[in-house]
Amino acid sequence: MAAEIVNPRTDGNGGIGGNGANADKEGGGEPLDSFDPAFALHRGGKMAVQATVPVRDKDDLSLAYTPGVARVCTAIAEQPDLVHDYTWKSSVVAVVTDGTAVLGLGDIGPEASLPVMEGKAILFKQFGGVDAVPIALDCTDVDEIVETVVRLAPSFGGVNLEDISAPRCFEIERRLQERLDIPVFHDDQHGTAVVTLAALRNAARLSGRELGDLRAVISGAGAAGVAIAKMLIEAGIGDVSVADRKGVVSGDRDDLTPVKRELAEITNKSGLSGSLEAALEGADVFIGVSGGTVPEPAVASMAEGAFVFAMANPNPEVHPEVAHKYAAVVATGRSDFPNQINNVLAFPGIFAGALQVRASRITEGMKIAAADALASVVGDDLAADYVIPSPFDERVAPAVTAAVAAAARAEGVARR
Amino acid sequence: MAAEIVNPRTDGNGGIGGNGANADKEGGGEPLDSFDPAFALHRGGKMAVQATVPVRDKDDLSLAYTPGVARVCTAIAEQPDLVHDYTWKSSVVAVVTDGTAVLGLGDIGPEASLPVMEGKAILFKQFGGVDAVPIALDCTDVDEIVETVVRLAPSFGGVNLEDISAPRCFEIERRLQERLDIPVFHDDQHGTAVVTLAALRNAARLSGRELGDLRAVISGAGAAGVAIAKMLIEAGIGDVSVADRKGVVSGDRDDLTPVKRELAEITNKSGLSGSLEAALEGADVFIGVSGGTVPEPAVASMAEGAFVFAMANPNPEVHPEVAHKYAAVVATGRSDFPNQINNVLAFPGIFAGALQVRASRITEGMKIAAADALASVVGDDLAADYVIPSPFDERVAPAVTAAVAAAARAEGVARR
Repeated sequence: MAAEIVNPRTDGNGGIGGNGANADKEGGGEPLDSFDPAFALHRGGKMAVQATVPVRDKDDLSLAYTPGVARVCTAIAEQPDLVHDYTWKSSVVAVVTDGTAVLGLGDIGPEASLPVMEGKAILFKQFGGVDAVPIALDCTDVDEIVETVVRLAPSFGGVNLEDISAPRCFEIERRLQERLDIPVFHDDQHGTAVVTLAALRNAARLSGRELGDLRAVISGAGAAGVAIAKMLIEAGIGDVSVADRKGVVSGDRDDLTPVKRELAEITNKSGLSGSLEAALEGADVFIGVSGGTVPEPAVASMAEGAFVFAMANPNPEVHPEVAHKYAAVVATGRSDFPNQINNVLAFPGIFAGALQVRASRITEGMKIAAADALASVVGDDLAADYVIPSPFDERVAPAVTAAVAAAARAEGVARR
Repeated sequence: MAAEIVNPRTDGNGGIGGNGANADKEGGGEPLDSFDPAFALHRGGKMAVQATVPVRDKDDLSLAYTPGVARVCTAIAEQPDLVHDYTWKSSVVAVVTDGTAVLGLGDIGPEASLPVMEGKAILFKQFGGVDAVPIALDCTDVDEIVETVVRLAPSFGGVNLEDISAPRCFEIERRLQERLDIPVFHDDQHGTAVVTLAALRNAARLSGRELGDLRAVISGAGAAGVAIAKMLIEAGIGDVSVADRKGVVSGDRDDLTPVKRELAEITNKSGLSGSLEAALEGADVFIGVSGGTVPEPAVASMAEGAFVFAMANPNPEVHPEVAHKYAAVVATGRSDFPNQINNVLAFPGIFAGALQVRASRITEGMKIAAADALASVVGDDLAADYVIPSPFDERVAPAVTAAVAAAARAEGVARR
């Protein structure tokens, strides 16, 4: 957050191109801009590229470009690992989407998704010091997306998959992880899961409870729900059930997708079936990533001292005022309530840590380490309205980065 | 050129990520770095991404990211043209290569080509104010490259093809131009041709000659040779012949590729056949883009007051000292001799102009306009050792940008 913002669009000094491509970005006066400050802010986009070496004279050019650059190219051709030392590859992540599941907006296509991808890119930079480039693809076929990302991969140190609809997102991620030797991370799944686990750890610590004693119910079996379920199981939560629109995902249903069938096998130890509401009776934890609404009586039926994480945006599945009547700890996805479960707490540090040690992938252990580091930032200030740090807490990204790098080394996926 | 260089790798203030991904870029002490300043300069790469809007607090985040960004996405989904106003799409060019014809190094692959692509990207920024992103592809099949770039296109305002070997480069460019409604420009072809034409115009002006009276011989029928030949014909040069390793490209040869067959039809009015040396006898202009060597007697056999543009790097086809014995104007590709034919004189302004008016393509007229603008910068200072401006002449990019934008409007390809 300490990095200074330089705006080449408005500093009146854009180099020779000052009257070039970007000049009339400042035209302004558009109705949308004066109507809504979000439009005014977005005019001309939210990001730019900058040179980090001088190109002021012939001598500069002879090092940064021909003939000097040829020696660097030759060295990389002879010793491929040098690409990490002498290019920006290991600093830069592709933020890849197909525009099919953008925020709560759904399938709005690649171009309309770009403002979100640019937003993600600048969050990578501001919070993690990681360069990121929006890549919104004009294809939705799984094979095509996989092939395209594989072909792009030489230019990037990592791939952040973003806003790709389920269940395609699962297969795309799995196949890319098999094909590539750089981290591939679907943030809508794992970023959300990491931050949820961190909040849950701290809620348990606050209540003096063990994760193994908790029974959790997740509403939503999309990207986030599936990933949270797997991560909670990995972290040792006692029992996890997942409900989709048709109720609890269980082996006795015959309408399950392959992903949900897998989920039915690893979740729902207590053999629940039926509605979400029924599953919540006596449950210790509710995690909402569905966008639906949970009736108040169902919340009231949860166990004493429950945790309610109602993360749908902008409308939480349970309004915090209602949740507080019954729950010991309440979290949402919104910045205007305490305990915001926000992915930006995780992805910048996770990629920064992975890139720092040139990890070949992001393992379960690295994600758990990220959650633990995130939880530990809260430290002795732990309270019911403070189980997760603020996105603007400057301790967060360094803690996550260091923990992820160390975990990558411990798990043998670091390459330096 | 006036843009300040901010180096996030060395300013000791890289935000939260300061001890993150980029931290040990400064490790240094590598043998290559102390051995060669080009390696020291390349450590960690030559470029970075920056935010152009603030992300300092919750309010900033609510405009640049959720929930504000959703309104911008929705607006673009409803009115697709708004993507140009509210994202960086119209500021950013993909620098696409497959690494098959990198500088004089040949097929060194995508990763080893990255230093050149980063160099290109920072030249775009420094000279044209255009953001550019290196995309080095892990495929060399024409269909695969075309499909990949088509799928990437939503994120970019233009595509600069770079260092793709002939003859694949011709088909890739042609098919991408058919498929996409943004400029697609193979700089090795057209950038070189534009700067060559500019120098030739000024050489003719200096000698008081008309282009239509000149007979030119081009050595090299690769990307640059083919494009220069077509552009000189378009510009009205009297006669143009092209020679490859087997001699003058002419209709009576049975070993021609489709591209050379097309060349044979539009060039060589005077029906030459045989060697390059023979073709040079009495010729007014020699243009070397081959990397071969032209024997001194062949240069001596050219017409009185000839122009010799020996552009091979690092070894010109005719050494300038030899050329000066016989020629009125001598140009090379090297920065240590006068009259350097350098693509950086053209591509930044060409893309800046095209992006400024959101041109759907870069037409022949826009390229001719770029050459004319470039030539006119020289103005009254025209001399035998000054037929083309310096790459560091700050008048160049604005002149080219303005001319290209005006030509795009005149030719009906501008969209604003």
